[in-house]
Amino acid sequence: MKVIKGNIIEAQSLNTLKTYKNGYLVLDEEGKLICLSQTLDKEYQNLPLTDYGDALILQSFCDMHLHAPQYPNIGLGMDLELIDWLNTYTFPTEAKCKDLNYARNIYSHLAKELINKGTTRVCMFSSLHTDATLVLMEELEKEGVTGYVGKVNMDRNGSSELEETTKESITETLRFIKEAERFKTLKPIITPRFTPSCTNSLMENLGKIANSYNLLVQSHLSENLKEIEWVKELHPDLDEYWQSYAKYNLWKEKTLMAHCVYSSDSEIKAMKEAKVVAVHCPDSNINICSGTAPIRHFLNEGVWVTLGSDIAGGSTLSMLKVMTLAIRASKNIAITTKDKSDVLTAEEAYYLATSSGERYFNDKVGFPLNEKLHAIVLDDTALVETERLTLSQRLERALYRTNENNIIAVYSEGRKVK
Amino acid sequence: MKVIKGNIIEAQSLNTLKTYKNGYLVLDEEGKLICLSQTLDKEYQNLPLTDYGDALILQSFCDMHLHAPQYPNIGLGMDLELIDWLNTYTFPTEAKCKDLNYARNIYSHLAKELINKGTTRVCMFSSLHTDATLVLMEELEKEGVTGYVGKVNMDRNGSSELEETTKESITETLRFIKEAERFKTLKPIITPRFTPSCTNSLMENLGKIANSYNLLVQSHLSENLKEIEWVKELHPDLDEYWQSYAKYNLWKEKTLMAHCVYSSDSEIKAMKEAKVVAVHCPDSNINICSGTAPIRHFLNEGVWVTLGSDIAGGSTLSMLKVMTLAIRASKNIAITTKDKSDVLTAEEAYYLATSSGERYFNDKVGFPLNEKLHAIVLDDTALVETERLTLSQRLERALYRTNENNIIAVYSEGRKVK
Repeated sequence: MKVIKGNIIEAQSLNTLKTYKNGYLVLDEEGKLICLSQTLDKEYQNLPLTDYGDALILQSFCDMHLHAPQYPNIGLGMDLELIDWLNTYTFPTEAKCKDLNYARNIYSHLAKELINKGTTRVCMFSSLHTDATLVLMEELEKEGVTGYVGKVNMDRNGSSELEETTKESITETLRFIKEAERFKTLKPIITPRFTPSCTNSLMENLGKIANSYNLLVQSHLSENLKEIEWVKELHPDLDEYWQSYAKYNLWKEKTLMAHCVYSSDSEIKAMKEAKVVAVHCPDSNINICSGTAPIRHFLNEGVWVTLGSDIAGGSTLSMLKVMTLAIRASKNIAITTKDKSDVLTAEEAYYLATSSGERYFNDKVGFPLNEKLHAIVLDDTALVETERLTLSQRLERALYRTNENNIIAVYSEGRKVK
Repeated sequence: MKVIKGNIIEAQSLNTLKTYKNGYLVLDEEGKLICLSQTLDKEYQNLPLTDYGDALILQSFCDMHLHAPQYPNIGLGMDLELIDWLNTYTFPTEAKCKDLNYARNIYSHLAKELINKGTTRVCMFSSLHTDATLVLMEELEKEGVTGYVGKVNMDRNGSSELEETTKESITETLRFIKEAERFKTLKPIITPRFTPSCTNSLMENLGKIANSYNLLVQSHLSENLKEIEWVKELHPDLDEYWQSYAKYNLWKEKTLMAHCVYSSDSEIKAMKEAKVVAVHCPDSNINICSGTAPIRHFLNEGVWVTLGSDIAGGSTLSMLKVMTLAIRASKNIAITTKDKSDVLTAEEAYYLATSSGERYFNDKVGFPLNEKLHAIVLDDTALVETERLTLSQRLERALYRTNENNIIAVYSEGRKVK
């Protein structure tokens, strides 16, 4: 058992930040949180104490949408829109993951960088390669990254180097699910790349597999106008993009849908009704000129919204930066609407990057008791005038002014991993 | 004399990047560049060599618009638009600079952070306080930051704590010009805050002072719609904002105008004809919900465009980040216009952050011969797959993937300052 001390900042709801100036976290032998308090109870006063002084103790980050095999492309080739960008840069890079040595090297770097930047929970796309996906999970688990990883399914509109037959895709998905049983803190998730990449037959089978094995689903939705047109051509029987998932039982509670830039009001309603989760990826959306997702509108409509880096459409794994880009995206909308209420606050961005993702994994928010600790320690004390600021102000400033070098400790599953 | 070796990347024009893989820079005793070449001439082969290996040698950055006294506010209070933001956050913070001990402390931090982030040339606003402005210049010169600094003029629409009389403003400006003679690498610049802050009488006098002392001018232009309306109310005789500067001889060659978000075609034409320089501040423009400046349009019209961090409307001093935000701002416009040519490339952003500002100081671009070296050494070699990328690709990636910790050396005025 042990005690951690510092300035604790907890996102209890979208608009409720709870702060503990010089507060205490008490962990049991397994790293489960047994007490969070402003003063330390007598019974814990003899436990070993890690005192982080005036540094901030924040919830660790949840990156709810990112593509592991695109890791080497971060910050490169952002001069094309979605479909051309996929064919020119993304598919050739993902194809390389067939080589397991190559895959292990880049996934080892990725896992280390995620922890270094304070991300301990992910919902991640791998490539279509089952064995490379298992390698990815090994590297993530080794470093302390937890969550869901999907072997990607794509049996059409890929490339000669990056496509499976429908049969291969199904067989390999079943093999993936079986092999993934060996991981403790990572689970498989059904991952049709997006509607244009999957035949109806494959979609139908994936819906059945998700149902049989009780697995969650992640994919992409309404990211780009040309993509939406393409889906219409592929599914002339359907009115809207989301129905191409719903038709095959892939549109259900906790299905993760990345982007939702151009979702209509009826698509938003369908998300809310089915309890589908939107993953807002503001960096990617601007980098590949997709558009700006109206996040305040989603929140007002009661849709569950989370954040994703979406590398390598996104240019950074830093959820600190992704939060500031989500705020900037909301301001971009507010400039047009002239409605100040469209602006996301720093507190709201923090909630979206932490608690809103956390709910996906444990149905809880903040620093829940009886759960293994996920937290980061962020030292902003070298910045000027720290002493005159409230903890809430320091949080806002930290989003803009700090980076991985300020993250001096990371806890995942109750264990110190940085 | 000495030799510096590395991968040199020079922005020769908006669209011409010249690269030297394992190239050489030869400096004379004063730090002036006497040779830039792919191979080292025999005559220099016995000089002491600093070999930066596979790191990138870039031009150092020019930050052409920032407010020194707002330094403590970076990353804070970005929930208001311009006029309210000035009154609520900015003016009270600037007023504190009356206290010279306070000013020296924050300016010392600012100067160190600029060098740490690779900015060696600035055009900077101080506060209205002459002595604090001289303290600022001392701290900048000590660290190696060069360029122009202005004592701000504001004799109306400030606050009880932050306003001068017209007479004080003129007298103090003259004292400032005289006292600033003692600096070697920093010069004074005439700095009316913006039209709403300066009476006509003050503007008239500033125009005369700029003319008598042959000084350059910096101010703000067409940042925000309410500001533009306000200027119209204050100058009912004028059709456009820029004329409120032109009327008093402050609109002339090399006058720096920050923002220009809402400049009309006739204002843009007036800029081009007078050779006024636009300072694009993309971070500030989105943070305080001003709007998005149409930079491609400015460039197409032949206006001289530079970049500024504009702290503390801007949230970062990092010109690496400001470049990526300029690219994102241009994509924001391209999403609306559906015109891909509106997108700024990474190479163009690098030109705007380096050579385009450098011209302001020495009428040259790139790494000019017979000028004291301004350069940074950026080590991106720890990122994956560096060896497979061209230097141009590594430059693009560096904008997104590196920060001050990758900047392992900075040269200013021929001297190593980091």
